[in-house]
Amino acid sequence: MTSLSATERTRLGRLSERASTDRAALHQILDDGLICHLGVIVDGTPRVIPTGYGRLDDTLYVHGSTGATSLMAGPSQEICVTVTHLDGIVLARSLFHHSVNYRSAMIYGTPVPVTDPDEKLAALRTITEHLAPGQWDVARLPDRKELAASAVLALPLDEASVKIRQGPPSDDDEDLALPVWAGVLPVHQVFGTPSPDPLLPPDVPVPAHIALRGTETAPTS
Amino acid sequence: MTSLSATERTRLGRLSERASTDRAALHQILDDGLICHLGVIVDGTPRVIPTGYGRLDDTLYVHGSTGATSLMAGPSQEICVTVTHLDGIVLARSLFHHSVNYRSAMIYGTPVPVTDPDEKLAALRTITEHLAPGQWDVARLPDRKELAASAVLALPLDEASVKIRQGPPSDDDEDLALPVWAGVLPVHQVFGTPSPDPLLPPDVPVPAHIALRGTETAPTS
Repeated sequence: MTSLSATERTRLGRLSERASTDRAALHQILDDGLICHLGVIVDGTPRVIPTGYGRLDDTLYVHGSTGATSLMAGPSQEICVTVTHLDGIVLARSLFHHSVNYRSAMIYGTPVPVTDPDEKLAALRTITEHLAPGQWDVARLPDRKELAASAVLALPLDEASVKIRQGPPSDDDEDLALPVWAGVLPVHQVFGTPSPDPLLPPDVPVPAHIALRGTETAPTS
Repeated sequence: MTSLSATERTRLGRLSERASTDRAALHQILDDGLICHLGVIVDGTPRVIPTGYGRLDDTLYVHGSTGATSLMAGPSQEICVTVTHLDGIVLARSLFHHSVNYRSAMIYGTPVPVTDPDEKLAALRTITEHLAPGQWDVARLPDRKELAASAVLALPLDEASVKIRQGPPSDDDEDLALPVWAGVLPVHQVFGTPSPDPLLPPDVPVPAHIALRGTETAPTS
């Protein structure tokens, strides 16, 4: 098990008991997610952009085409990518101890725009297969123009922190006798029934890799 | 219907056809969410922090105790708060047109720490009732010490943008005849069965406001 970096900002704060620096946990949180929130600085102020991503070993590939234009065109800058799973709402006897169960990963680094066509294709495959596993082998591959129009950032998983809160509420001892129900209301992300494109001929069956995914619990993100 | 501001940064980008500036849509996206991602600048780099929030009219109250300490103690700075609902995975005939259906709100502004005890209590009530409706009336209220230990930021909903992508894939005409299934795999966030605190006596029933919520589809967030 490899330790993650523990720089000042990745081991901070009053909730350090919730911090875990286990690389396996980091990978799991990233692999279980569907989208991330990308933090960039634009004209001196932070901007938080939801976007797609995928992990290949210890590189995070982030889809850069939805609003992260300044990252692709401008000078390099440090960014923060956060993936959060909301697992439950923690209902305590006191309002003060209400909380949420969650798993979250925060990655810092200076992303590099992926420009090499082969690496870009591999990165897009990683991002696509993360969001829609099985599709890379069935859908039409990007042509040269589409590849050029796709923007991908590569971010090494060198500096990251993982925070996890799980389990029942942490009420104060003197509140335990209060006549208030306490516990956790779980939150899950699930896939629904696939909805065909109206332009699809009526006799095209939903492929197994999509239909079966619809019967599973989605990773939360 | 009130228009939102349309500053340079809230009407930008190549996806402006997805931008909506309807305040009702903004409220709906915020009210349907469970958590937000708060973007701040710490030591010159962005940080993206998941946290709780709640809306009261046109003020967003953000829970500030999990990592946003610099916002409470330091000089005022502009922040960005983003709430994202992932509604579906868009499966196209071409990999290039794979996408996600989503609703997202991005709010910019300079937050003000809430210090007045009455306003702080109202703000905490807003945040708690957003995440756990019905709990404010049954759980123990914060005492003076707990109130002092709670950090809340107030952010006016003055400058915000809403982006929405819904519907089937947008394949190119020349791809429509490809033998590839296309459509949307919906994603929903749902509540599970409430899990009682092991420290609870066995005869305490789950209150209706929690049990019934467990039977509904949760808002995605």
